[in-house]
Amino acid sequence: MAPLAPGAPRLLWTTDMLMDGVDFDSAKHAWRQVGWKAMAVNLSDCAAMAASPRSALCAVALNDRLSMEQALELAEGVRECGVRYGCPLVGGDTNSWDAPTVVAVSVVAESGPHGPIGRSGAKAGDLVCVSGRLGGSILGRHLAPTPRLDLAAGIAERLAPSAMIDISDGLAIDLSRILEASGVGAELSRAALENVIHADARRLAEESGKPALEHALRDGEDFELLACVPGGADPRQTEALGLIAIGRIIAEPGLWLGGGAEREPLSSAGWEHFR
Amino acid sequence: MAPLAPGAPRLLWTTDMLMDGVDFDSAKHAWRQVGWKAMAVNLSDCAAMAASPRSALCAVALNDRLSMEQALELAEGVRECGVRYGCPLVGGDTNSWDAPTVVAVSVVAESGPHGPIGRSGAKAGDLVCVSGRLGGSILGRHLAPTPRLDLAAGIAERLAPSAMIDISDGLAIDLSRILEASGVGAELSRAALENVIHADARRLAEESGKPALEHALRDGEDFELLACVPGGADPRQTEALGLIAIGRIIAEPGLWLGGGAEREPLSSAGWEHFR
Repeated sequence: MAPLAPGAPRLLWTTDMLMDGVDFDSAKHAWRQVGWKAMAVNLSDCAAMAASPRSALCAVALNDRLSMEQALELAEGVRECGVRYGCPLVGGDTNSWDAPTVVAVSVVAESGPHGPIGRSGAKAGDLVCVSGRLGGSILGRHLAPTPRLDLAAGIAERLAPSAMIDISDGLAIDLSRILEASGVGAELSRAALENVIHADARRLAEESGKPALEHALRDGEDFELLACVPGGADPRQTEALGLIAIGRIIAEPGLWLGGGAEREPLSSAGWEHFR
Repeated sequence: MAPLAPGAPRLLWTTDMLMDGVDFDSAKHAWRQVGWKAMAVNLSDCAAMAASPRSALCAVALNDRLSMEQALELAEGVRECGVRYGCPLVGGDTNSWDAPTVVAVSVVAESGPHGPIGRSGAKAGDLVCVSGRLGGSILGRHLAPTPRLDLAAGIAERLAPSAMIDISDGLAIDLSRILEASGVGAELSRAALENVIHADARRLAEESGKPALEHALRDGEDFELLACVPGGADPRQTEALGLIAIGRIIAEPGLWLGGGAEREPLSSAGWEHFR
């Protein structure tokens, strides 16, 4: 998300583009779901900064074999997700062409009294928390993400988070973005990570032959929140919000599995476009 | 353009998507020009409402055969056009895929003290004016549009326009959009229209075999302004602004070439996506 204009300090905005064959598969997925996802991924960006979405635009390049009904279903999915989260679709740009469908949604959001939560404030001693189990979203969850807007507002209000991000490209890489922006490192607890492996990660591990933990660490599109909160945060508060602590921020840069003499470096590799 | 949020009454926003093979041709056009155009068409939307652009986002799906250098040229074109017109590029979303390149820019703008100029205020007796010669932009001008931001501000300040639009799909169809929104009609002067035929329209007419006037009336992507101003406007003011009067708004709906008994209906057909 980026600041919108100098004269409107509390307004931020963001854009996210989905492409057929990359972010969804029109041969398998309903157009309404595709529309929902296109809006939801932007709302998840708003949640990452604890900002409240205000309105959205949607630009589409529709494959010219789409029927008018399918095009309307796509639009309805976008609209419906926006209505659900208080973010009306107010305009857009509709085009058609003979290549796969592209949907680009932009969302304007307003930060709360605490200001937007960024990525650069994590401090040694902070707890690293996630808002839900991770991995294997490709088995279906990736199409119907729940933007964690209410939860983000709760975290901002009660826990004074130092940094926050939504897990769109994978836990390891998205955490690394916070670490780099903040100039710190993190040690993740093996035992705690066991608690955030999603059942889908375990199912996918049976197919892929990779450890389920790898799926939890590296699969994209979970759209859960990853928040760094002060180390002295009341565990009853974090638990009441449904957060799961998975490790601690340390002063020394780097991402590690385990702590002390036993620790191993953890690669940040995840899903990255165009690198 | 659409209102941005209830709490920010002077902010508007818009989005426009360009696709390779439809709005530009990467085999012929430089990526920097493509980037410029992607920003400029959005700024032209701002000019249509006499709103001042404030910031922009850009989402791209880059064909995966693009080099990093080409991708950076595209981004530089977007950025450069924004800087030229006071609209910094503040963020975006970069993706790659194996289909043609898509560029979607969104722009936030602030309306002036006169408020945003819409399409629905045209009144019988108004003069219909355009800001420049039209037609044949496909010969090259379509790639380097000049958003008429300063001119739009001048029109809004000095002429109290009742309705305005930028000519993106063609004079006939864009004027029809004002007529429909305003519930009025227009009679265009044959003699005056002769004055707005661009030299490119005449060149293209030689190739196409169609009258040059047809190109002036129906070709898209001129990005000149079409403004309806009160019939009593001082001709020195309109001339000083470089506006060319081409006809008058009438109470009776419909679009006509000529007036009185001699008039002929003029089809509004132009370039339309997905109809």
